[in-house]
This record gives sequence, C-alpha cells and structure tokens, in this order.
Amino acid sequence: MNLTPSSVKSDMLKLGEAAYQASAEIRRARTSVKNAALIAIGEEIISSRDTLMAENEKDLVVGRKQDIGDALLDRLTFNDARFDTMVEGLHQVAALDDPVGQVSDMSYRPNGLQIGRMRTPLGVIGMIYESRPNVTVDAASLCLKSGNAVILRGGSEAIHSNLALAQCIRSGIGRSGLPAASVQIVEVTDRAAVGELITMSRYVDVIIPRGGKDLIERITREATIPVIKHLDGVCHVYLDDGADPVRGSDIAFNSKTNRYAVCNAMETLLVANSVAATTLPDLARRLLDAGVELRGCPQTRKILAGMAVSEATEADWYEEYLGPILAIRVVSGLDQAISHINQYGSKHTDTIVSEDFTRIRRFCQEVDSSSVIVNASTRFSDGFEYGLGAEIGISTDKLHARGPVGLEGLTSQKYVVFGDGQLRS
Amino acid sequence: MNLTPSSVKSDMLKLGEAAYQASAEIRRARTSVKNAALIAIGEEIISSRDTLMAENEKDLVVGRKQDIGDALLDRLTFNDARFDTMVEGLHQVAALDDPVGQVSDMSYRPNGLQIGRMRTPLGVIGMIYESRPNVTVDAASLCLKSGNAVILRGGSEAIHSNLALAQCIRSGIGRSGLPAASVQIVEVTDRAAVGELITMSRYVDVIIPRGGKDLIERITREATIPVIKHLDGVCHVYLDDGADPVRGSDIAFNSKTNRYAVCNAMETLLVANSVAATTLPDLARRLLDAGVELRGCPQTRKILAGMAVSEATEADWYEEYLGPILAIRVVSGLDQAISHINQYGSKHTDTIVSEDFTRIRRFCQEVDSSSVIVNASTRFSDGFEYGLGAEIGISTDKLHARGPVGLEGLTSQKYVVFGDGQLRS
Repeated sequence: MNLTPSSVKSDMLKLGEAAYQASAEIRRARTSVKNAALIAIGEEIISSRDTLMAENEKDLVVGRKQDIGDALLDRLTFNDARFDTMVEGLHQVAALDDPVGQVSDMSYRPNGLQIGRMRTPLGVIGMIYESRPNVTVDAASLCLKSGNAVILRGGSEAIHSNLALAQCIRSGIGRSGLPAASVQIVEVTDRAAVGELITMSRYVDVIIPRGGKDLIERITREATIPVIKHLDGVCHVYLDDGADPVRGSDIAFNSKTNRYAVCNAMETLLVANSVAATTLPDLARRLLDAGVELRGCPQTRKILAGMAVSEATEADWYEEYLGPILAIRVVSGLDQAISHINQYGSKHTDTIVSEDFTRIRRFCQEVDSSSVIVNASTRFSDGFEYGLGAEIGISTDKLHARGPVGLEGLTSQKYVVFGDGQLRS
Repeated sequence: MNLTPSSVKSDMLKLGEAAYQASAEIRRARTSVKNAALIAIGEEIISSRDTLMAENEKDLVVGRKQDIGDALLDRLTFNDARFDTMVEGLHQVAALDDPVGQVSDMSYRPNGLQIGRMRTPLGVIGMIYESRPNVTVDAASLCLKSGNAVILRGGSEAIHSNLALAQCIRSGIGRSGLPAASVQIVEVTDRAAVGELITMSRYVDVIIPRGGKDLIERITREATIPVIKHLDGVCHVYLDDGADPVRGSDIAFNSKTNRYAVCNAMETLLVANSVAATTLPDLARRLLDAGVELRGCPQTRKILAGMAVSEATEADWYEEYLGPILAIRVVSGLDQAISHINQYGSKHTDTIVSEDFTRIRRFCQEVDSSSVIVNASTRFSDGFEYGLGAEIGISTDKLHARGPVGLEGLTSQKYVVFGDGQLRS
C-alpha cells in the first residue's frame, strides 16, 4: 500500500475511534465471554492452518528476497509446533484469573464510608512489535482477557502472516459476541502509522513497544502517550565474598549460556576479589569451551593470564551483547558491586550468589532493578517463571508495572467508595 | 536573578546530580532517621518563625505591587495557624507506616524459588507547583518519608517564603544525618529552569506538577520524564431513578457548595428524568440561595421555569468551573449518565445516589474515573479522607497511581527472588 500521510492519519484515527468504542464494551464483558473468545480464536487458528501457511509463505518469499537473515526468517516461519504453542497460550490465558473488577483493601473509615480499590482495564492499548507473528496472538489474548481493546502494529516483514492471524482473531471474537474492534491490526505498513498511533492520546491509553533498542528509543522520544517499555537488559551476576565456587560458577554459566539473545541473560559478571582467584579460572574455561568470548578488567586478565580474555573498555560495562560475549570485573566487595550495577546496569535483573545474610539483605534493598535475585540464575526473570501465567513484556521503568508484565500490569486500580449519605463538613 | 539559559542548564544539572547522589543514601535510610528529620524540620519552622514571617512579607509586598489578587495573597500569607498546620503535617507523615521495603505476595514456586514484591522509592522526584508555600513542606515530607530525593520548584511569587522554608528543611535534614540534597529548592525563577527539570531524565525519575491546567498541560507536553498529574476535576453527581430526594439533594448540595475552588467539587449534576420534577425545584432553590449560578439543559430549564437558569451549552459539560456555577442535565437514566460521565468528565470523581443494587453495581464497574462513589459527597475524594494520611496530589492518569496519591504512589515494586542454586533448563 502506498498511502499519503493524510490518509494514514485518517485511517489511524478510524482505528482509534473504533478501539475506543470497543473498549467501553469489553471493559464490562463477563469473564466467560472473554474466555470463550480466546478458545474460539484458537479453533480458528487450527482450522485456518492452510491459509496461515500460505500467507506466511508470502512473507518468507519477501524476506528471502530481501536477505533478512536466517535468524529473522526462522522467527518468522509458521509450522505446526508454533500453531500448537499459540493455541496452548490462548488456553493458558483463558485459564488465568480475571483481574478486572477485583476489589482489594476494602475497609471502613470512622465515618462509615467503605473505601477500597477496584481493578479496571486501562482502556485502549497500542502494541508495536517486530518480526515474530506469535506476538500478535499473545498480545491479543492478554489485552482481551484484561478487558482492554488493542491496536496491534507488527513489523512489515510479517504483514501477511499478521493479517491472516488477525482474520482468525476477528472470527473468534465475532463468535463470542464481543465487538470485532476489540483487536485491530494496522494494515498500513507506512512508518507514519506508528507516529500516529503513539500520539492519538484521545483514543489510546498506553503504548507497549517490543523490539530492538532503536525502535523503543524512537517511540519513547516521540510518544505523547504513556509507554510501558523495556529498553535493554544489562543483567549482572555478582559472586560475593565466600560464595561457593561450584554454585557461583553454575549460576553464572547458566545465566550466560542458557540462551544468548534474551534480555535476562547475564552480560557482566562481577566477582568479589576474595573469591576471584579460586572461582574465575574454572568458570572461564567452561565459558570459553562453550564458545563465549571474554572481556575482562585488568585484575581478571591477570588471574586468567594465558586464556583468551581481551581488555574490557568502559563501553563494555554498558553493553547488552545479546550474544556469546561476557564482560568480567573483579570488585572489592558488595559496595562496589552495588555501585557498578546501579551505575552501568539497565535496572532489569541482577543476581547475588552469597550465603552472607547481612550482605544479601543489603543487595536486595540497594540494587535498584526490576528483579533482584539471590542464589538463582538471572534467566528466571520471566512472567511464566514468576507465575504470572503469561507476559506481554518486561518493564525496566519504575512507574506502573516493573519487571515481567502480565494481566495485572494491563490494568489499573480505581477507588470505590460506599456510603449512606455522608456529607463533608 | 537574571541568568542566561546556559547557566540555568548547568545549575539545574548540578541540582539533578546532587539529588541523584542523595537518593542512593535516602533510599536505604532507616525509618527512625527519616522520622527524626521530619520532626527536626518542624522544630526548625517553629524556631524560625520571625525569619519566615519577614521573608514571607517580601513576597507579599511584591504580590500587592503586582496586584495578584486577594485570593492569591491569602494563600501566600504565613501566620501562626499555618505554621502549626505545617508542623502537624510533618508529625502526621512521621507517624505513617514506612512503605519502603515492604514485601508482599511472597510465595514459593514449584521449583523452590520464593518470589515476592518489595516496595522501593522511585528515586528522584521533580515537583512543580504554584503559590502555596505549604506545599513545599508537604511535598518534602512525603518524598523524604518514601525514601525519595526531591527537587522542588515553587512559584516565583512565593520564592522568598520557599527559600526560607528550604533553609528550615535543610537544617532539619542536616540534624538527622541525611544528605542535605535529599530536598532541594530551585532558586532560579527563570522559566527555563522548569524546561530543564522536566527533561533531565538522567537524574529525575518522575515529575509531579500541581497547579492550573495551563501549567500542567505545558509540562505534560514538554516532559520527557513520566508525569503523575491531575489535569482537572469535572466531577458529577448522578441522581438515579428512585433516589431519595432529601439524600440526593443533600449530597448534591454538599458536593457543590462545601468548597468551590477544589478539584473534587461537583461541576455537573445529572438527574434521572423520573426524579427530576420532584427533586430539582427544591435543590435549585437551595443552590440559588447559596449564590450558585445554574446552567441547565432544555428539560432542566422547563422544570425550573421561573428560576434563574441559563442555557447550558456543549462547552458547559466539559467545564471545571472551580466556582459557584453548576451545570444540570436531565438524563433518561443510568446508561445516559454513564455515557455522559465517560464522555465529558475528567476521570476524577463521580457519585451515584441510588438504592438500586444492580444499577449501583454497573455504575461502579462502568464509570472510568479514579474514584467512583455511591451515596456520599464527591468531596470525600481526598488522601486524608481515604486514610492515606497525606496526599501529594490526585492523579487522573490511569497508569501507576490513580486517585489520591500518598506515600505508596511515591514508590514502586520490584521483584525479589530467593533461591538455593536454581538453574534454568
């Protein structure tokens, strides 16, 4: 499609208006109706298998022609296992408790007023993401279940796959009786559509971007609507004084090598000076054997003399490698570890390996990250592992949702006040 | 002072850097130390009475010369009663539970990980407000108690009063041993200082503006830091079918006339058609007698024929009068009342007067406002009345804090995870 900016604008405003109207209905929809919609979407995906595969192939043909790379092509590819995962995800979200309308902290005030807080949907969510078409289904299901309307804007490289999934979603929603505009996909691939979406404050309540740092920085800079975002994951493991070398090594190794291209992988290892000489050589050997490139501070390089460890620069401490590279720094102890994490980290997830109660207590209090972990892999920082049932992303912001964002993060709380005629004097 | 923009910028960056450093200390300060600081600030205010009065007089002289009006002059004026109120406020905040470090929802996952959420300070808060110097003390105390550093930017008309209060705050904080930069006041009255404050995302975590709609709109538009804001309070009282005329009339009268210039005063009265003829005449008479100007829909004017009721225009439904004016609309019933509130309201506070369980249930669920009240005055929407102990403002945003914002709204929650060597497979 090749639209002029003004027609993009009017198209987007139409989507916004429709989403806004739909949100008034879906906010009060019964849980059973929302669940029925989720199950129906899954059925539509299964019965539309051939169409989905054919539309997906169109994206793959373009992708191969444009040489987008094997990794991206792989993420883009549909197959039966991925359909099963999508459908399973829909069933899992259907099985979760509905947060909408939950009342908490209800109690009486001295004047007889009862005051509590009720969970409500946010309204209309604008979701902007790249590549993986399964995000289309995940995001739609979480937004639906939490009573929000959603406008989805996937990457242009997945446009055919996403539109085909949108058709399944629309059919499923239609069968449940919810308004079709509860979930809408932006069909315009023009980048101006994103510019419109993130400034339609009249219709859209929150923007959730998922993708590369460039995309998220641009959206944060240009959005006039609140953004729930996750910029990057510069995660640390700190091996404290007295940390068991085997446990420390296992946690560090798992945090780095379990998966490389994920935001909760360790990017920098901090080691207390007192355990560096006993722990680092074996651990470094394991990492090098696994194909991880090591970059160390002078002290690290001294301890690992003879091994392939290049010199870490200041820039390395800020780096989210998302790959088999690890920065290593020997620190004097807890204080320096905490300062390093708060200065260079991205407030995502940081682990301490320690048995010292007082230092663990300080680490938990003073590390200013969305997840602070004691004696376990950073890789556990994840909505499923935390028992949220699903996640729409991991927030490194401090306001509203922090850490893995599930259904609760897609709602807010309003006050409800019950009286019997109270007047203010 | 008459600074060039570049020196304003460097002055503000210095404040930001100092606040950021201080926040690392105050975030881990003990409750007893923070409370001691609050009590000490109160003592400094009492012992600095004469200086405060003298500095306040400087502002009043300028204010009278600039003819800022009696209302503003009154809000600006110090006296013993106001000092007492400030000190009492400090003691009240000291008596509140410390939210920092509170752990909730801690439970075991099947793999033995314990996962919970810990309340943490936001970091550095930028507070921008107009006129009333008591906000200086209120905001400082709430930010201190919640473990945040704060940069305060009051109105230029109160600059001498605010700087004198700042001196008391600094002395009080100094006596407790907390870093002096925990609370800083912007001494530069140049407007460019605000522009800097709301874009120093490196140092400032959240902006809280308090003041007129113009100020808040400007800040929201220009800030690159998250804003917790309250734009306006277009509050409604809806008298439902079957509403008791006396109770309905009392609640409406109190919601309008208890105080005019406050955000939780009623601005539009909605009356179900079935009770309009029996309720409106007496209520209108009371309001007119109290000096309230009435603007009605055609139906209202018909029922109140002979009384001084002008015609309400479309613009009236959006209006926050903040004064003795009331818009009145007769609606067909609950559905129209809810649509009216969600369309024209400001998502602040709305009351239904009713005995009908099913309609009350719908009103609570479907009205998308920060406070939904049943059978009580809108005037109760307030941090003190809700038992928060104090409030830094009332948020009409949906993300993060909604409604009256107390200590909890000045904190966020991070995940804490305790393990004994768990690795991800």
